[in-house]
Amino acid sequence: MGTPERIEAVAEQVIQTVHAGHKVVVVVSAMAGETNRLLGLAHQIDNRPATRELDMLAASGEQVSIALLAMALIKRGHPAVSLLADQIGILTDNKFSRARILSVGTERLWQELEQGHIVIAAGFQGRDIEGNITTLGRGGSDTTAVALAAALKADECQIFTDVDGIYSMDPRICADAFRLPYVDASSMLELASLGAKVLHSRSVEYAAMHQVPVRVLSSFRPDQGTLVCYEDQNMSVPAVTGLACQTGEVWLELNELSSELHIALLKEFARLAIETDMLKVQYAPSGLVQMQFSLNQNDLNTVEDICNELKKKQNFTLQSRKSLGKLSIVGIGLKSNPVITATVFEQLQLLAVQVVAVSCAEIKLSIVVPEAELNKVAVALHSALLGSVN
Amino acid sequence: MGTPERIEAVAEQVIQTVHAGHKVVVVVSAMAGETNRLLGLAHQIDNRPATRELDMLAASGEQVSIALLAMALIKRGHPAVSLLADQIGILTDNKFSRARILSVGTERLWQELEQGHIVIAAGFQGRDIEGNITTLGRGGSDTTAVALAAALKADECQIFTDVDGIYSMDPRICADAFRLPYVDASSMLELASLGAKVLHSRSVEYAAMHQVPVRVLSSFRPDQGTLVCYEDQNMSVPAVTGLACQTGEVWLELNELSSELHIALLKEFARLAIETDMLKVQYAPSGLVQMQFSLNQNDLNTVEDICNELKKKQNFTLQSRKSLGKLSIVGIGLKSNPVITATVFEQLQLLAVQVVAVSCAEIKLSIVVPEAELNKVAVALHSALLGSVN
Repeated sequence: MGTPERIEAVAEQVIQTVHAGHKVVVVVSAMAGETNRLLGLAHQIDNRPATRELDMLAASGEQVSIALLAMALIKRGHPAVSLLADQIGILTDNKFSRARILSVGTERLWQELEQGHIVIAAGFQGRDIEGNITTLGRGGSDTTAVALAAALKADECQIFTDVDGIYSMDPRICADAFRLPYVDASSMLELASLGAKVLHSRSVEYAAMHQVPVRVLSSFRPDQGTLVCYEDQNMSVPAVTGLACQTGEVWLELNELSSELHIALLKEFARLAIETDMLKVQYAPSGLVQMQFSLNQNDLNTVEDICNELKKKQNFTLQSRKSLGKLSIVGIGLKSNPVITATVFEQLQLLAVQVVAVSCAEIKLSIVVPEAELNKVAVALHSALLGSVN
Repeated sequence: MGTPERIEAVAEQVIQTVHAGHKVVVVVSAMAGETNRLLGLAHQIDNRPATRELDMLAASGEQVSIALLAMALIKRGHPAVSLLADQIGILTDNKFSRARILSVGTERLWQELEQGHIVIAAGFQGRDIEGNITTLGRGGSDTTAVALAAALKADECQIFTDVDGIYSMDPRICADAFRLPYVDASSMLELASLGAKVLHSRSVEYAAMHQVPVRVLSSFRPDQGTLVCYEDQNMSVPAVTGLACQTGEVWLELNELSSELHIALLKEFARLAIETDMLKVQYAPSGLVQMQFSLNQNDLNTVEDICNELKKKQNFTLQSRKSLGKLSIVGIGLKSNPVITATVFEQLQLLAVQVVAVSCAEIKLSIVVPEAELNKVAVALHSALLGSVN
């Protein structure tokens, strides 16, 4: 919701859903630009602001938008009530800026719904057990929506975005990309964690865990969108569901770590919620460990800081390759489908791309290449693997 | 606190107080302009926005400023923690936009203070018994400060404002006005409710009720300021403490009300927290009631709406005079001091001002005149009553 006009449009859309006979809980995020404005203020004070206070600050953005949307509905004669995380009872852990939802209270929600109120819930935020405000990180409002839908056992959790569904690939990169009417939850999970920015992986994880029927729709021209399906829903699963691209990747190689340091490093990653991908670990006969993994460039400084700290205990080497891109092919049973693997390697050879790494898991095959080559690889592989489907 | 720079300056000031050996709770209001920005957004949606949602919206302003001030302190190596009304436990009634504080929790405050934390508390806001956000109305942050000081039995509640204390009169109107080093609580109460805008009357009421030692200081050049004193503090009380001016006043006269309607009207005023002043009620032999009172022009529409509603039950007349100003002389024992009363009426005669109404209470003498004449009257009376003191 970018502007007061946009809020009015959202209000109209909510009223349509109410008129269709539904009880509605709307989860909203901050107005466009508001979060950045707030972070800008924080960075004027301190370039590494205290995370507890950063969450206190950032959460105010949603407080503004829920109040405005409730006002717009009330003005139209529809009783609405805005609720903050603590008023709903959204309990999270205390990892500020990256908190995870532990539980959702439903008492107040049902009470308001049963009184015929439209509930406008603040997305992106929660409270820890001590009552501190936490935020859920990127895509946090989606996670809130899924969590509330799960808690209320909602018929559907509709996520309104700026695209009209999940695509076989980013249509800005590949003109042949097509909208998927359905996507299985596992593939969605991989796609989301791999840079298909429509849904954040954490919200998809939460949805999969609670089997929430999530539908991704366009805010501007809502249509069928894409429905995330679970095992019990009958559908034919294509071998390749879709492709996802990620830029700003780094490939790291650590050599000659003791196994103690290796474990210490992984624990630090867990504590700081640093996400690695394509992790490969090898043990040398000496017992020393080699680790390779891809990483988002934004996390590189943190990882280097951790390594420099650990090197004080035992020296090891760290090499990084920057400015890389990652293309991931997602689909059920990829690993056991040699036709796909063969097609991929054949294409890579034809393109004469310098491949940094390839890894293949049950439903995902990822290829790391120089960032500049990423789109070329993506378009060629989409055409080779999915081109004939459309 | 207008800007990030200003927040940094406040942080430095807080640290000075900490270095002087005090445990500090800082109550802050929204950044300058922020509340107006938020209200502007609301009015783009609805020109009479729902008050519950308006409070939800407005309270976000303080959330931003407490987080930023806490960040600024933490950056300087001083552990600080920002707390919202619900985290402190500020319970209010449910009169949105004009709520009154019912109780203040101290457990979390003491817990943080004892851990050596500086507490940054959100002013202006509370929660009602159902957990809804309420705001305290104009001057709300002062009230919060006084309420927290009372709950914690603080040594002093320092209110930083844009002036360096309470003056014998608004120095912009009267050049002879002087700063009062002390003011007794009763006079302060009258001055505050009469347009000496330094402190809002509600905060002074709260202070008087709990005998909180309040000191009014300038944020820019903190000095001794003005200390609000209570009976047990030894000080010589001058006959006239100070003068206060209010513009935008209306004088209302209601005639031929039945006593039922009269009571109904007063109840409506109470319900909507409409403040009248100089109320005079007279009973005609018929039993019908005449009411006269002054009112802030902003409340006139509401009062007229109420009266039009009540007229449906029994007709009565309502006359209003607008564009008036009120000068109030405040001091202990005014009513029983004929010298002062005589001086006042003599001056009014000399000035040949058209006086609309005069009323005299124990510690306050108010004179309603046309707004255009107000400053002339104020300067003349200040000079006649206090001119020789300075």
